[in-house]
Amino acid sequence: MIVDELIDKIIEKQNPTCVGLDTAPGYLPENIVAGLTASRSTVNAVFNFNKIIIDAVADIVPAVKVQMAYCESLGLLGVTNYYATCHYAREKGLIVITDAKRNDIGSTALQYADAYLRNDGEFRTDFLTVNGYLGTDGIEPFVDACVQNDRGIFVLVKTSNPSSGELQNLKLADGRTVYECMGDMVAAWGGNTFGRYGYTRVGAVVGATYPEEARRLRERLPRTFFLVPGYGAQGGNAEMLKNCFAEGGMGAIVNNSRGILCAYKQRGGDIAEAARAAALEMREDLRSVLGEICVK
Amino acid sequence: MIVDELIDKIIEKQNPTCVGLDTAPGYLPENIVAGLTASRSTVNAVFNFNKIIIDAVADIVPAVKVQMAYCESLGLLGVTNYYATCHYAREKGLIVITDAKRNDIGSTALQYADAYLRNDGEFRTDFLTVNGYLGTDGIEPFVDACVQNDRGIFVLVKTSNPSSGELQNLKLADGRTVYECMGDMVAAWGGNTFGRYGYTRVGAVVGATYPEEARRLRERLPRTFFLVPGYGAQGGNAEMLKNCFAEGGMGAIVNNSRGILCAYKQRGGDIAEAARAAALEMREDLRSVLGEICVK
Repeated sequence: MIVDELIDKIIEKQNPTCVGLDTAPGYLPENIVAGLTASRSTVNAVFNFNKIIIDAVADIVPAVKVQMAYCESLGLLGVTNYYATCHYAREKGLIVITDAKRNDIGSTALQYADAYLRNDGEFRTDFLTVNGYLGTDGIEPFVDACVQNDRGIFVLVKTSNPSSGELQNLKLADGRTVYECMGDMVAAWGGNTFGRYGYTRVGAVVGATYPEEARRLRERLPRTFFLVPGYGAQGGNAEMLKNCFAEGGMGAIVNNSRGILCAYKQRGGDIAEAARAAALEMREDLRSVLGEICVK
Repeated sequence: MIVDELIDKIIEKQNPTCVGLDTAPGYLPENIVAGLTASRSTVNAVFNFNKIIIDAVADIVPAVKVQMAYCESLGLLGVTNYYATCHYAREKGLIVITDAKRNDIGSTALQYADAYLRNDGEFRTDFLTVNGYLGTDGIEPFVDACVQNDRGIFVLVKTSNPSSGELQNLKLADGRTVYECMGDMVAAWGGNTFGRYGYTRVGAVVGATYPEEARRLRERLPRTFFLVPGYGAQGGNAEMLKNCFAEGGMGAIVNNSRGILCAYKQRGGDIAEAARAAALEMREDLRSVLGEICVK
């Protein structure tokens, strides 16, 4: 089961992190960007950069998260980067999370599910992020595809961005907040099928930047695996995101994008060495608050 | 201003509808589908079908809505269909609405905005649907791009699907529902810049299938233009969606996808004739409840 596979890799590498490949052309070294003359060479340069990062961290992280927006902003060829990057990461033994936040009514959600979660599709991924604003019939096609093809989804619950509270933290008449209500729906969508480690295929996105909300959600959703954005560039640190984890450092994976991709800009040195050093430092940072990652 | 352009075309054609190009390969005639042997021929057949529909309705409807999910489900080549279909529709003088429901945190939303709303992008569209669950900083990059490049967005407020009420109709502690709160945010995001007809660039998606909610939103959001899905296959009819409109049949555009794309299956006859007849019938149906579309 894919969630077990992810957790196996987290335990094996003692590292509950994933590297976010949100690669903007602006993240590349200036001398490379300056030499790019056409969209094809930009797209190729971004893919080469992604390969450098993947090679640098493949033995120390369990997963990468590929951000679709950065592919689409490079046009049709940019979307081929999505395919090539996912394919390369999978070849290197990494779990692939696609961050695309897809959502639609049932019949259309089925098309997205088909694109990302079927076995032979070019958009094929292991985990897909989705948005639950439309309710159950917009999520069911994703869940069905997950069960059928052994995949997972992460539903946006409490996002890491500064404005996330505007809607998500509003109090409902029944006493819950909107994000707690979304969390409850996520738990229901996960159903009663758990993997070896006790987690369902339907995970939640819970930002590192909101420790109090994370604490409440961790307590409320014991069977839900969390994808945690917001570490590093967005301001989240290890102490803040501790609350996303269950005992033994289980139940969550933390993403870091710019902090690893652009590490060479801060640290100097080459891209691969700097990315690897930043990824190792992040692992130590998390382990300093989580201890050994193991079933307790 | 793009919203004025849309309304000009609605008035000129006396038709507040758009044709939804949610073209699944299964919508094509069986003899064509049976002859398709590879993904490239499927993609070509879908594009040819879209061209037939566009040619059949270009002089009687103001706009088409292209559904990204149906492109992505056909893989990388499918996404080239998105580009080709939008391009062809624009050449035929139609306004293009891209239904992609994109959403993310600010820095990433900027990438989507750049992809869909900048002038030279291959994903270029006139209007993009977006999801506001992440709050203001996830929407601002879209609004900024709209202002800069004269485009528009439609934010999901009350969607047409059966489960939409699960979250959207929940009562907040302050007495509003979640969809009313989202509507208020949409009005705020629209700001104080109105076109000639009094509408902002930031529209709302309001399903035809929920007339009571539509009535409340129409009253609450006088400056917000509505994109209305749910007519036809989803069960909405003219009487139900009357509430989405302001006086004089202004303030909304109604989408119909399967009812037009697959009309030839119900009516017999060729694809183009059936699509045109269905589109004309829909116009008459709407005008029977709206009367003449004009500024009152």
